[in-house]
Amino acid sequence: MDPSRLAARLAEAGQSHLLQFWKELSPEEQSDLTFDLQGMDFQEINGFFQKAMETSSGSKQEKMDSRMEPVPREVLGSVTRDRERLKDWEEAGLRCISQSKVAVLLLAGGQGTRLGVSYPKGMYDVGLPSHKTLFEIQAQRILKLQQLAEQNHHVKSHVPWYIMTSGRTMEATKAYFSQHQYFGLDQNNVIFFQQGMLPAMDYEGKILLEKRGKLSMAPDGNGGLYRALGNQGIMEDMERRGVEFVHVYCVDNILVKVADPAFIGFCVKKGADCGAKVVEKTNPTEAVGVVCKVDGHYKVVEYSEITLATAEKRSADGRLLFNAGNVANHVFSFSFLRDVVEKYEPELQHHVAQKKIPYVDPEGRLVKPDKPNGIKMEKFVFDIFQFAKTFVVYEVLREDEFSPLKNADSQDAKDTPTTARHALMSLHHRWVLTAGGHFIDENGRHVPAIPRSGGAGSFSDDGKTNLKDGTDLPIKCEISPLVSYGGEGLEELVKGKEFQPNLMIDETGVHQLVKNGV
Amino acid sequence: MDPSRLAARLAEAGQSHLLQFWKELSPEEQSDLTFDLQGMDFQEINGFFQKAMETSSGSKQEKMDSRMEPVPREVLGSVTRDRERLKDWEEAGLRCISQSKVAVLLLAGGQGTRLGVSYPKGMYDVGLPSHKTLFEIQAQRILKLQQLAEQNHHVKSHVPWYIMTSGRTMEATKAYFSQHQYFGLDQNNVIFFQQGMLPAMDYEGKILLEKRGKLSMAPDGNGGLYRALGNQGIMEDMERRGVEFVHVYCVDNILVKVADPAFIGFCVKKGADCGAKVVEKTNPTEAVGVVCKVDGHYKVVEYSEITLATAEKRSADGRLLFNAGNVANHVFSFSFLRDVVEKYEPELQHHVAQKKIPYVDPEGRLVKPDKPNGIKMEKFVFDIFQFAKTFVVYEVLREDEFSPLKNADSQDAKDTPTTARHALMSLHHRWVLTAGGHFIDENGRHVPAIPRSGGAGSFSDDGKTNLKDGTDLPIKCEISPLVSYGGEGLEELVKGKEFQPNLMIDETGVHQLVKNGV
Repeated sequence: MDPSRLAARLAEAGQSHLLQFWKELSPEEQSDLTFDLQGMDFQEINGFFQKAMETSSGSKQEKMDSRMEPVPREVLGSVTRDRERLKDWEEAGLRCISQSKVAVLLLAGGQGTRLGVSYPKGMYDVGLPSHKTLFEIQAQRILKLQQLAEQNHHVKSHVPWYIMTSGRTMEATKAYFSQHQYFGLDQNNVIFFQQGMLPAMDYEGKILLEKRGKLSMAPDGNGGLYRALGNQGIMEDMERRGVEFVHVYCVDNILVKVADPAFIGFCVKKGADCGAKVVEKTNPTEAVGVVCKVDGHYKVVEYSEITLATAEKRSADGRLLFNAGNVANHVFSFSFLRDVVEKYEPELQHHVAQKKIPYVDPEGRLVKPDKPNGIKMEKFVFDIFQFAKTFVVYEVLREDEFSPLKNADSQDAKDTPTTARHALMSLHHRWVLTAGGHFIDENGRHVPAIPRSGGAGSFSDDGKTNLKDGTDLPIKCEISPLVSYGGEGLEELVKGKEFQPNLMIDETGVHQLVKNGV
Repeated sequence: MDPSRLAARLAEAGQSHLLQFWKELSPEEQSDLTFDLQGMDFQEINGFFQKAMETSSGSKQEKMDSRMEPVPREVLGSVTRDRERLKDWEEAGLRCISQSKVAVLLLAGGQGTRLGVSYPKGMYDVGLPSHKTLFEIQAQRILKLQQLAEQNHHVKSHVPWYIMTSGRTMEATKAYFSQHQYFGLDQNNVIFFQQGMLPAMDYEGKILLEKRGKLSMAPDGNGGLYRALGNQGIMEDMERRGVEFVHVYCVDNILVKVADPAFIGFCVKKGADCGAKVVEKTNPTEAVGVVCKVDGHYKVVEYSEITLATAEKRSADGRLLFNAGNVANHVFSFSFLRDVVEKYEPELQHHVAQKKIPYVDPEGRLVKPDKPNGIKMEKFVFDIFQFAKTFVVYEVLREDEFSPLKNADSQDAKDTPTTARHALMSLHHRWVLTAGGHFIDENGRHVPAIPRSGGAGSFSDDGKTNLKDGTDLPIKCEISPLVSYGGEGLEELVKGKEFQPNLMIDETGVHQLVKNGV
């Protein structure tokens, strides 16, 4: 495209300022900018902007409250309230897995910016005894599930793993998997694809420049998934493989039960085309979106959209009325996903995230604003709930299934490498106890199931409470996913035995790592 | 007592080693040691030791599980499940207060050792905008309650405040109150008394020396309360004042509703002689003691006594079966307390706390052990539950009523000055919203009830969850107890108004503290 035609297109779209430094750019920069601009549909982007801004303005908060209804009990499956059915669900899910009908889809477009690293989050090592990364843990859980399905159903099956990256994380992610031989998975069953990018804009809809010759671009949100599924041939790939259920989850949850058979089985038994895993929200001001109905359609209402009065509403049983805390963990039927990709995706509106976006001002200087100066437009993965015909909610225990890694370790931070590591070790500690193992201290005494805070010798002063939980000072214990997916199969290894931490159980055996080596 | 008689008494009690450095002591040290030893009943102390060690040994944990029963619904009052009755309870409690039948009793024997300060914890300033200390906040809540009672019942009443200190905190506490004119309370209604001390012992029952001429002594636990009530004339004082209900609580809870009318009213309406305030335990491995029945008697089972299997048990409604988390906050009827002091106190057994106790070895050297080398013996305030004829449990919301101050600020610490400060400001923020006020940001926009983590401009990237709560990054807002005890009376001050944080409401008015001063 020649420069004048490009300029005309930009003028038509009100984005002429993107060429304001044209004459100062090197030929290479000019060519790069031209390439970037040619690939963009400005009419579409301007349309996104207008619709997103319309939706985000207005006093929708006040309105939202009266439109919200809680999830009815009949669409809810709960690991605490439906315990007698768990076994059935798990079996149903594992049967689907054994029939190679289940795929997992990982949302891994984010960089570890808040974590303080520049590589993909999945490559992060939270400091477990094994030093496994999030990617490796998830890969091994898939491997183990394939084994369990084979053991139970005597057929070899596979769980294809679709990994959505972004322009920023694609190369590093692929290289990492290749370097580690896909952690033992069949390379053909690990499929990478890439979510789209959208430009950042100021409040008037002008695209921002991050350099004089470069647009400020950002991934289009985890809901960019649906567009990417369509335009990168992923739906065809799934169809060819005979995938019927897709488990979608985020990379940052160290406890994630990848392709959780119980969750999938619950969805199957309910005939659901769309299922959301949730954890109970117990504090009204907890910053978590809640799954609920709005105008009769399922939706995640974000914490910033809800008034205190609504957040504090309670059912007769004392629970919060809106307590289905969304954890970005969903099951979709293939046919639902196909309908979404083919029919509904264009109906999804972008959400507006106000951001502090560094930009080049008209004098060509880079400005780093100290308050929000523009927006990024994003779709969210849960935006498609509204289109489900049979929507279900599956409630699990936070301490068993959800511990996201978001921030670097620091004083007031939550969701850090430390909390993630502790959550995993606490879970594995509980697996060992449940399987009949015991932990002992240096004097051979049994360590209580809930260790006293401060460890041995620093006992509570006065019988007063601490209200810490076992994740604060966990027994150091790690069990490889190759040994146990969800706590199963440990009795023969630990029952009636006593262990001194650190305890490590992996495919080579049971190891007690004492201070001077193994 | 002459030295040889003292030596004989010690020999008889197997504690002769306490005089092993006698000849090396100065006359003054000899005299001090003699004084300390003369005041001690060694037979009694040895008896305590034997009974305490017997009770603490043995595999009582395994046994405990089968003996535990949950609190039955009929003895439970719950702010979330009995909302329609709260008003009644509150009125009944306030009526008692207006009749001067209610006293409060503060357990304040602890030093702020874990907090890193050497003065009494109640004198700690957690860094609120007002810089009020825990003692001042509690004093003002009592003042406000007296006002509310007077407003409602048109009689002047008083709530006497009994403050139990220990040998270590008595002088500093009294001086602090005197220096601050008892924060406006009538000095005659603030009564200090002192809990007892017991020696630390090694595992053989030998009393430890902290210096060659000085015994290692420690307060006898918050359950030392009952002995102190008897031997320091407090019961007589209460009787003279006509006290019928005593609210007992710990100094370290910044949210404590001192003499909580609803809690007292609930106990009154239930005809209870003993009531325990609890918060719901939601995570099985949370380090909190739970109120339950053991062999038919009410008891707090500590977290270290419970197996994982029992901790994880659930009711049909999905809640933990043993979920009544003890927060050291109780109401006793005067007659029950009198029975305890007169009849039951001697039956209470000491609990054994294994500790690292610095001691002088036979060569006269001070040793600081790095693992537990001995025990301290303590009674707990809740040990008397078993004697109650009508025991009730009152469940409240943690975010509204419980945030203890235990540790200094540091990376992994919970229950710190920061968490206490945030908990109070978050509560007061919610009070303002509930009373119809609004908070706005620097651009005049309403701030959501649940602020986004990271504050303005650091918005969530992808619609994923954070599961933080509003206490993490609270709106800075503090309301003096002299203005509102529990959120009441704020409408006329805030309804329909917009505030920029920091908001401070005190008896002089509504202040918005912006960056450059008031």
